[in-house]
Amino acid sequence: MSTDRPNSMSKEVKPESVSLRPLGTAAAHEQELLCIFGTGDLGRSLGQRLLQSGYGVVYGSRRPNSCGPVPQGAKVMSHEAAAQSASLVFLCIRREHYDFLATLERQLKGKVLVDVSNNLKKNLYPEANAEYLQRLIPGAHVVKALNTLSAWALQNGPSDANRQVYMCGNSAEAKQAVAEVATKLGFSVLDRGSLTAARELEDIPLQLFPEWRLPLRVAIGLTTFFFFYVVIRDVVYAYVDQGKDISFRIMVSLANRVFPVVSLIMLSLCYLPGVIAAFLQLYRGTKYKRFPDWLDRWMLCRKQLGLLALGFASLHVLYTLIIPIRYYVRFKIAASTISKMKENQTSPFDTTSAWRTDSYYSMGILGFCLYLLLGITSLPSVSNALSWREFSFIQSKLGYLTLFFCTFHTYLYGWDKFLRPSYYKWYTPPAYMLCLVVPSVVIVLKLLILLPCVDRSLTRIRQGWERTDPEDDSKKSLLT
Amino acid sequence: MSTDRPNSMSKEVKPESVSLRPLGTAAAHEQELLCIFGTGDLGRSLGQRLLQSGYGVVYGSRRPNSCGPVPQGAKVMSHEAAAQSASLVFLCIRREHYDFLATLERQLKGKVLVDVSNNLKKNLYPEANAEYLQRLIPGAHVVKALNTLSAWALQNGPSDANRQVYMCGNSAEAKQAVAEVATKLGFSVLDRGSLTAARELEDIPLQLFPEWRLPLRVAIGLTTFFFFYVVIRDVVYAYVDQGKDISFRIMVSLANRVFPVVSLIMLSLCYLPGVIAAFLQLYRGTKYKRFPDWLDRWMLCRKQLGLLALGFASLHVLYTLIIPIRYYVRFKIAASTISKMKENQTSPFDTTSAWRTDSYYSMGILGFCLYLLLGITSLPSVSNALSWREFSFIQSKLGYLTLFFCTFHTYLYGWDKFLRPSYYKWYTPPAYMLCLVVPSVVIVLKLLILLPCVDRSLTRIRQGWERTDPEDDSKKSLLT
Amino acid sequence: MSTDRPNSMSKEVKPESVSLRPLGTAAAHEQELLCIFGTGDLGRSLGQRLLQSGYGVVYGSRRPNSCGPVPQGAKVMSHEAAAQSASLVFLCIRREHYDFLATLERQLKGKVLVDVSNNLKKNLYPEANAEYLQRLIPGAHVVKALNTLSAWALQNGPSDANRQVYMCGNSAEAKQAVAEVATKLGFSVLDRGSLTAARELEDIPLQLFPEWRLPLRVAIGLTTFFFFYVVIRDVVYAYVDQGKDISFRIMVSLANRVFPVVSLIMLSLCYLPGVIAAFLQLYRGTKYKRFPDWLDRWMLCRKQLGLLALGFASLHVLYTLIIPIRYYVRFKIAASTISKMKENQTSPFDTTSAWRTDSYYSMGILGFCLYLLLGITSLPSVSNALSWREFSFIQSKLGYLTLFFCTFHTYLYGWDKFLRPSYYKWYTPPAYMLCLVVPSVVIVLKLLILLPCVDRSLTRIRQGWERTDPEDDSKKSLLT
Repeated sequence: MSTDRPNSMSKEVKPESVSLRPLGTAAAHEQELLCIFGTGDLGRSLGQRLLQSGYGVVYGSRRPNSCGPVPQGAKVMSHEAAAQSASLVFLCIRREHYDFLATLERQLKGKVLVDVSNNLKKNLYPEANAEYLQRLIPGAHVVKALNTLSAWALQNGPSDANRQVYMCGNSAEAKQAVAEVATKLGFSVLDRGSLTAARELEDIPLQLFPEWRLPLRVAIGLTTFFFFYVVIRDVVYAYVDQGKDISFRIMVSLANRVFPVVSLIMLSLCYLPGVIAAFLQLYRGTKYKRFPDWLDRWMLCRKQLGLLALGFASLHVLYTLIIPIRYYVRFKIAASTISKMKENQTSPFDTTSAWRTDSYYSMGILGFCLYLLLGITSLPSVSNALSWREFSFIQSKLGYLTLFFCTFHTYLYGWDKFLRPSYYKWYTPPAYMLCLVVPSVVIVLKLLILLPCVDRSLTRIRQGWERTDPEDDSKKSLLT
Repeated sequence: MSTDRPNSMSKEVKPESVSLRPLGTAAAHEQELLCIFGTGDLGRSLGQRLLQSGYGVVYGSRRPNSCGPVPQGAKVMSHEAAAQSASLVFLCIRREHYDFLATLERQLKGKVLVDVSNNLKKNLYPEANAEYLQRLIPGAHVVKALNTLSAWALQNGPSDANRQVYMCGNSAEAKQAVAEVATKLGFSVLDRGSLTAARELEDIPLQLFPEWRLPLRVAIGLTTFFFFYVVIRDVVYAYVDQGKDISFRIMVSLANRVFPVVSLIMLSLCYLPGVIAAFLQLYRGTKYKRFPDWLDRWMLCRKQLGLLALGFASLHVLYTLIIPIRYYVRFKIAASTISKMKENQTSPFDTTSAWRTDSYYSMGILGFCLYLLLGITSLPSVSNALSWREFSFIQSKLGYLTLFFCTFHTYLYGWDKFLRPSYYKWYTPPAYMLCLVVPSVVIVLKLLILLPCVDRSLTRIRQGWERTDPEDDSKKSLLT
Repeated sequence: MSTDRPNSMSKEVKPESVSLRPLGTAAAHEQELLCIFGTGDLGRSLGQRLLQSGYGVVYGSRRPNSCGPVPQGAKVMSHEAAAQSASLVFLCIRREHYDFLATLERQLKGKVLVDVSNNLKKNLYPEANAEYLQRLIPGAHVVKALNTLSAWALQNGPSDANRQVYMCGNSAEAKQAVAEVATKLGFSVLDRGSLTAARELEDIPLQLFPEWRLPLRVAIGLTTFFFFYVVIRDVVYAYVDQGKDISFRIMVSLANRVFPVVSLIMLSLCYLPGVIAAFLQLYRGTKYKRFPDWLDRWMLCRKQLGLLALGFASLHVLYTLIIPIRYYVRFKIAASTISKMKENQTSPFDTTSAWRTDSYYSMGILGFCLYLLLGITSLPSVSNALSWREFSFIQSKLGYLTLFFCTFHTYLYGWDKFLRPSYYKWYTPPAYMLCLVVPSVVIVLKLLILLPCVDRSLTRIRQGWERTDPEDDSKKSLLT
């Protein structure tokens, strides 16, 4: 079959240069050869996938004749021969064994070396594996790539695993060559710049929920504090004051007091930084000054704060729903019925109580359902399907509605207990009163921002207007 | 480093033509320069991302020396100089400030102008921003692109936000140039045709759940109707007939009567249009006639109808589960126990009641769980992982099973009350009887369609057979 | 508009060769023409989408003048003329009508034929549609592609449906040409190799949850077994032993006994194969021997086993939460209160019981919430956003924690009943005791593996160390 593309001129390739031809020009008869060093899990998986995608694969091995199973269709040669046969070499070996590559310096000169290695721990070595490799073989074009993929994902293609892979390197051409191979394997490559980004890329597979750390610490801190607070105010107080042991209440009753408290505080902590930022912009009269670092970090973990709060809210819901099947509750209800019977007094039905408790439950349910909706829309696939305006409508408008429902739910729970001194054991307020502070502040501040005059200033500032800088008007006209 | 690709011929570029070189050919020493007009949030974010991806960035500013912070590595020049230095110019300024571009007509001639602007409202201007721009500078190649991205998504790349971006424009080459840049930034570009599609693209970030409007209106209408229906039949009737105030029941008891009713009706409204379409095809004897517009629109919002119905069903479940912890219910149970005790009569255990109520709960739970399954499979990431046959199996077979369970659940709830006149207060049927009409009709019609003879005709029609058009047989053989 | 790219040389195309030009080179004036055979749903949808993406479309029809509606802008010609006018032909006709293509052999020579057909059933024909087509017209380059898309997805682009499409074919150039078109339509193409993969691709839209079959069979088997086991031990035993009919308990009480049992067993079956594999590796002293087939298959369906178990657990939760509103339960509680009243004996509050039941509920709730978390992280979009380390942390560490909570929950449920002979009706243990066997074994084995000495050996083996092969040390150094 003849090919008419001018790209086929690339046959006259100088051996030293990066010479991978673009995808379409690989004529049927001259299958492109790629080289893989290392016949471990990763090497074999990668080789199999490359073969499936129409590449030829040559393995480089120290003992070409006894290196274990390689995918059908692949050849095995000595490292020297393998390196010479292809212009792109995947290194599927561990950093600990890179040393021997120095002996291949001549054969690897001008080749694209793809470093897919990872380490077992962060900061194990002073420099990134890929930078070390580049230093070892200065004549090669080292590209760090594909290291975020497991052998499994490499072998099966991106059907179920992540399509997105990263790469970095100093040579634009070498990166382009690697990008073409990765694209043909079905991955989508994001260039992260020069080889100095290699450390960052090598840290990706090792990271363990970095953006969840702060919210988790807040959650654990709040839970611990409120747990001891509640244990002291209830269990210890009952023991000291009345000599009763009600420690059995820790398992469900007290847990169900801590969870909603933590949940509400964390939900309001989601919305507090936004309110603070708005007031900061109003105060400064410009949006062009950077926020302080703590505020930036806080705003970046709002999603995680909210999801943890949703988890605590779910626990609260389940703990509430099992109330009627608890032994303690059944015992108490039977005892109360029997005592009413014995005293022969029938307390009249209290309509206000009925209204209050039913409203209280209704608010809670509506708040929880909205909360679930917020959680569902923060699933990556759902939030990707939303336009920016839709996403902010849900996360902001519905978010504040959720906060309002949940706060109102808690106020209804308190009802008239806020004013009765008997509830302030040891002069401390109950936990639910404490937890109302932050959400109430957030709601009040938000209402302030929604006042027409404040809202107008804020909108102008967010559209680029600046208060303090009157001589600079012409410039602003271009800032948006 | 020498490059052997014929594409490097592109150095002899005529200044007037679109001259962006393909990705791979940017030799290391001659970094491609892109120009950005506007140093606002969007401009700076875009510039930073472009720099990260290996491009050079020049900002055009009216006051190059005092234009505020730009990303490190970018240059700032006058608009004229900046425009001349690059072949692709991103316009990160508001439409209101486009006028001044007319003065740059000479410098912008033959350049690719990427319009990333959005408006604050729909239909603010008679023509799309990009069309207006093209009219202002007829010599430039205007491409509308990237406008669906926020500054945040532009700066951070598509890791968490949406990868999919749109573009349109009249010049295929200009679009290709923009597509290459967008691809290198990690986005995946969908070409939406000529510049006349610009308005559509500019409306995307402004849309607010367009496909949810009709279902939401149906839901609100049904909820309002049934709420007043139930309030009149229960609260008003009790007040008029017996002088009792049971308005406290609105909060939970009546809400929990409205939610399941609306949920069941909306679930059956999901399946009604499919049944109507089938009968229409049977009646017409062909599948090649278009459905009436109302049916088309109805069928397009089935997913949203179903998800709203699931929301109402979830509310019903939560409202049902809190029943035993309500003050009103506890009071009633205690009162009934005490009265039984006093009258010393023990009503015998009724096995039929036990069977009925347990079946009723079981049906409800199974229906709800299937319902949840339908909801989960309609998450974008899950439905994408399903084959067409799997998706239709779940949404059709399991969907009808869900409808059957929920309808049966409601019939079991009614039980023998359908025939007792005392339940027809003021000659009106209870809400749950009303809501059974639509699902019962859907189920009966579906059963009719499943009859072997009807099913066979329908299958033939859906495979392209036509009843009324006997002379056109040969044609049909190719229509599928 | 002049174009300076060397690719524009491709105008001197030899008619026989694959001559699709790369995307960017399609000059504005010479829109690329594609041909579609078949004007059915699929053909029309495809044509409309191609037109939108800037291609020209020619339909081939046996009766060009009376072939029904085609998208605006498309031309209709005879098959011969249409085939000659384009270098790429989409076949949107059924395999049953392929025969007539043989008469077009001359016109189709050297063209790229894209077979998008599917069959109604698997194994309907001895060879794949695409292979049959290639045999019919040996001179054409047949590419199987896009067949996993519905007409709907083709028309609307990949906004909501799946982006990922597959293709296979013998000519690399033909595949590249198809890949370019598909990419421009917004899909991302995965090359699955030569045309022998066509059968596999044609089976994709027909598959119905292949990876769910084994887990579903296990679930149905376990459910059936435990249902009859429980019915015999409870209902039949009560009838035989005491002559009481308690069959009404089947609907909720017995169901709620079967669901948790099946759920716990299936959850432990998720973790059993991993433990078995670890012991197998320890025993063999290497990780390079393949696992037996049954173990491989078992490991591949762990996710499905876990999700089914989560479904059963959810049913268990809902069945448990409705307990207090059941007629039977309310009757029993009222009867017990009345009898206590009559006998005038007030059983004292039992703190141990309160601790036990509350712990039992707490364990269950925590286990279920962790379980939900596992389920959420196995949603494709969530698991894709996790790094490999994060995913394995959740699925392994949190998974074992879930298993532990659920097992402990069941032990607490049993409490002291394990030793009371009265619970062993007909010498059989209750279902929950039976179901504790597998999870207990898994937990004990896992604890064994976590012993420092065992863990160390296993880690070494998993890093490539082999016990039995001392002379092969140098090789191992490259195996990773």
